[in-house]
Amino acid sequence: MQATISRSTRLGIPRTIRAVLDEPSSSITTVQGWLRSIRAHKNVSFLEISDGSSSRNLQAVVKGSPMKDLEGLALGSSLVLKGEMKESRGDQPHELSVHTIEVTGESSAAYPIQKKYVPPDVLRDHAHLRFRTTKNGALARLRDAVMREWHDHFEKEEYVHIHTPIMTSSDCEGAGEAFRITTDPITPPSAPSTQKHDPFFPSPAYLTVSSQLHLEAPTHALSRTYTLSPTFRAEPSATSRHLAEFYMLEAELAFVETLDDLMDTLETAIKDVLGGRRMTRARRDQEVIAKSLMEDKAETPSADEETDPVERSDMFGRISGSEPFGRVTYTEAVEILKERHAQTSFDFPPTWGAGLQSEHEKYLARQVYRGPVFVTDYPRNLKPFYMRLNPKDHLDRETVACFDLLVPGIGELAGGSLREERLDRLIESIDKANMQREDYEWYLDLRRFGSVKHGGWGMGFDRFMCWLTGIGNVRDVVAFPRWKGHCKY
Amino acid sequence: MQATISRSTRLGIPRTIRAVLDEPSSSITTVQGWLRSIRAHKNVSFLEISDGSSSRNLQAVVKGSPMKDLEGLALGSSLVLKGEMKESRGDQPHELSVHTIEVTGESSAAYPIQKKYVPPDVLRDHAHLRFRTTKNGALARLRDAVMREWHDHFEKEEYVHIHTPIMTSSDCEGAGEAFRITTDPITPPSAPSTQKHDPFFPSPAYLTVSSQLHLEAPTHALSRTYTLSPTFRAEPSATSRHLAEFYMLEAELAFVETLDDLMDTLETAIKDVLGGRRMTRARRDQEVIAKSLMEDKAETPSADEETDPVERSDMFGRISGSEPFGRVTYTEAVEILKERHAQTSFDFPPTWGAGLQSEHEKYLARQVYRGPVFVTDYPRNLKPFYMRLNPKDHLDRETVACFDLLVPGIGELAGGSLREERLDRLIESIDKANMQREDYEWYLDLRRFGSVKHGGWGMGFDRFMCWLTGIGNVRDVVAFPRWKGHCKY
Repeated sequence: MQATISRSTRLGIPRTIRAVLDEPSSSITTVQGWLRSIRAHKNVSFLEISDGSSSRNLQAVVKGSPMKDLEGLALGSSLVLKGEMKESRGDQPHELSVHTIEVTGESSAAYPIQKKYVPPDVLRDHAHLRFRTTKNGALARLRDAVMREWHDHFEKEEYVHIHTPIMTSSDCEGAGEAFRITTDPITPPSAPSTQKHDPFFPSPAYLTVSSQLHLEAPTHALSRTYTLSPTFRAEPSATSRHLAEFYMLEAELAFVETLDDLMDTLETAIKDVLGGRRMTRARRDQEVIAKSLMEDKAETPSADEETDPVERSDMFGRISGSEPFGRVTYTEAVEILKERHAQTSFDFPPTWGAGLQSEHEKYLARQVYRGPVFVTDYPRNLKPFYMRLNPKDHLDRETVACFDLLVPGIGELAGGSLREERLDRLIESIDKANMQREDYEWYLDLRRFGSVKHGGWGMGFDRFMCWLTGIGNVRDVVAFPRWKGHCKY
Repeated sequence: MQATISRSTRLGIPRTIRAVLDEPSSSITTVQGWLRSIRAHKNVSFLEISDGSSSRNLQAVVKGSPMKDLEGLALGSSLVLKGEMKESRGDQPHELSVHTIEVTGESSAAYPIQKKYVPPDVLRDHAHLRFRTTKNGALARLRDAVMREWHDHFEKEEYVHIHTPIMTSSDCEGAGEAFRITTDPITPPSAPSTQKHDPFFPSPAYLTVSSQLHLEAPTHALSRTYTLSPTFRAEPSATSRHLAEFYMLEAELAFVETLDDLMDTLETAIKDVLGGRRMTRARRDQEVIAKSLMEDKAETPSADEETDPVERSDMFGRISGSEPFGRVTYTEAVEILKERHAQTSFDFPPTWGAGLQSEHEKYLARQVYRGPVFVTDYPRNLKPFYMRLNPKDHLDRETVACFDLLVPGIGELAGGSLREERLDRLIESIDKANMQREDYEWYLDLRRFGSVKHGGWGMGFDRFMCWLTGIGNVRDVVAFPRWKGHCKY
């Protein structure tokens, strides 16, 4: 039967290609999607159609001599196809034997992403179109699956999700780098801003840099809370690891008394998520991404992809298994790094009291522990005011009950701590950090009325996606990335 | 056995009270939580303990003459209790027969929410503590359950969740009222702002007022997308229905051709969510909230609670059932309202071409349709540029293929439309709206390369919670509400 092309057929909502491939029907099947590739032969043409529901495309077979309309069809065109699903002699079990094709929206030679290979930086400049590539489609589905596994994990563990505020009057960690919100009109920089304007809020308001402090309030009522929430840093350095807008997964837990118990909750969570029921299908998307990264590496050897492909492909099996994550104190870690410094020659010599550099973190995870490792009990001066103070060590040094979780290729993936629940010490820490106590009265109230031992952690969700996929640039795991100088769309 | 109070016992993470009540163990049980009430008798004391995991409190029974420490115990104190779960002669099937109590964090007479009744406006000023009330705890759990039902619904229907951007260079609906983001230092209003400052982004950036335009991009690759995302309006009027920061649930669907098909997706979704598996337990939380609203009404008759309690208590059963939502065109609705105007005397006489007022919307939903009703096909001039133009009617009037979903007590709950997929008409609409075409080139690209018929809708998630609970003030369904003049915490 020769296919005919019409441009007027009307349709309801079609089944997705995923459904059509998973349950091929013997009756007439209608498919809508976008043209990914076309191979026209003398008596038969093969079209690859995608609707984004699966990393698998539908192969559509059009018999008869190639028609004029089909010949000139640009990639990216949207089509309605009707036909029968039949067993295929190609790579896929089934293919669509086409009866009719309708072109619903044409594409053109100007389509910016029609080449077989488009480098990541070009795609980044076409963020509104890059979802259409195999890699970015897979990434969107994988991110969706991972988000759902996290939500399911927390539900199973009886955490309540809280929509923490984005606009805030406080600057959580006193680290600066907060964006400010205003309704003031923009004034030219040289003109005197004499214009009187009624501010929307009575005092300065910022975009949140962490939901943690806010999350501690419901935790003192609901016991187990978490949030997956946008977070913002006016980070001036434009590295491949930092965004101005990113998603943070943050959890708080009442009645947790030891750092080991707290780390257990995070380690269990990660293993649970990676071993989740959606991960079988997600793994196919992960493999598509891995293949695309190999291509990036071949085409652009300078690409900032960092994770070892072998490690990545084995990740779900290995990480979700029973092997425990490493655990080491900061003090012990510095000793290990000092020992290795002789052969390894770090750019920054490791010293007790200084922060771990990215090179140290990656070395610990990849070379020493060959997998995820918790580094615990950092010096007090390196960490924010709210972390619980440990007893002094035998050298009279002060540390706090905290951890950073380091993973190969990424470095710091998550961080957490027991929170200082003792009112007097918390006040002392606020004063020591030169913060304004009156700004934190509400936070102190949590210690004044029914204080409990509690702790929590935060993980960059986008960085987690980098870890899972091996994508080296965090701008490529986010739908519309924002960083210094870039806020397109 | 007489209970003893110690303040030093150490514990791991205890089971939640929900788990303890659902599966009372015969061995020694440890519970942690906060003291909600205490009734001390001569030889026995009854304590109500909550850890927020359930609307049910644990009743703890302390035998023996009331101890000194217990006598002075302030509400809100945190406790560790050990004992045995036994069958109860009270209202609940089981209670904890206490062996030991440990006070881990004391409360005091200054505890701001210890009175039996605390009015909603006082609680609003103590947002960090109000999660501890029965009503607000129930609300947090209900919101969590409803969010999960929505996520599950979309997964079942093969939608992909997208984290759409919060910071944006565009002002979606051209409606103004967008917050601007800056890293400029705050300058006193009278001083000349001579200070040179390197802007973080090259052009002005705003907080998103809707994710829709951004969501259309992945929809042209993944076919079905949605987002549950914070959204912002610098709404200057401080009504009980508007927040400056709120959560929007927005969905976009490719290949949908008729408004009826699109409305079907939303109607099915709402019924699916309200009939979801979590709703049996959630209903208990809903009842707790309803009871608390009755109390509000008794104590503060002027409270802005609006939904009919009878309607509310029947909501899950009725809405999730098979009764279809009403559907009426704007033109027909105006005719109905005009007819009723004689008896009803609206403040605003209904006229074709003018927007429906809140009084009209509520009247249609409550008096005419006695339930949810879709009003469709509004005049073009009342709606944003991206809605699909209908053929002119017999009076040569222009309408667009859109709907508002109205519900009793709330008015507008959701709105949606087919999107204009025809490049030429979309450009015409952009010009007609006096918008800058160059700002929307990326959006026009979606029509240049493989355009497809598509549509979508957005629903205020917080307003949905108001509808479900009957809470009249949207500030009371949000953890940390922000509105004109208010950005505390």
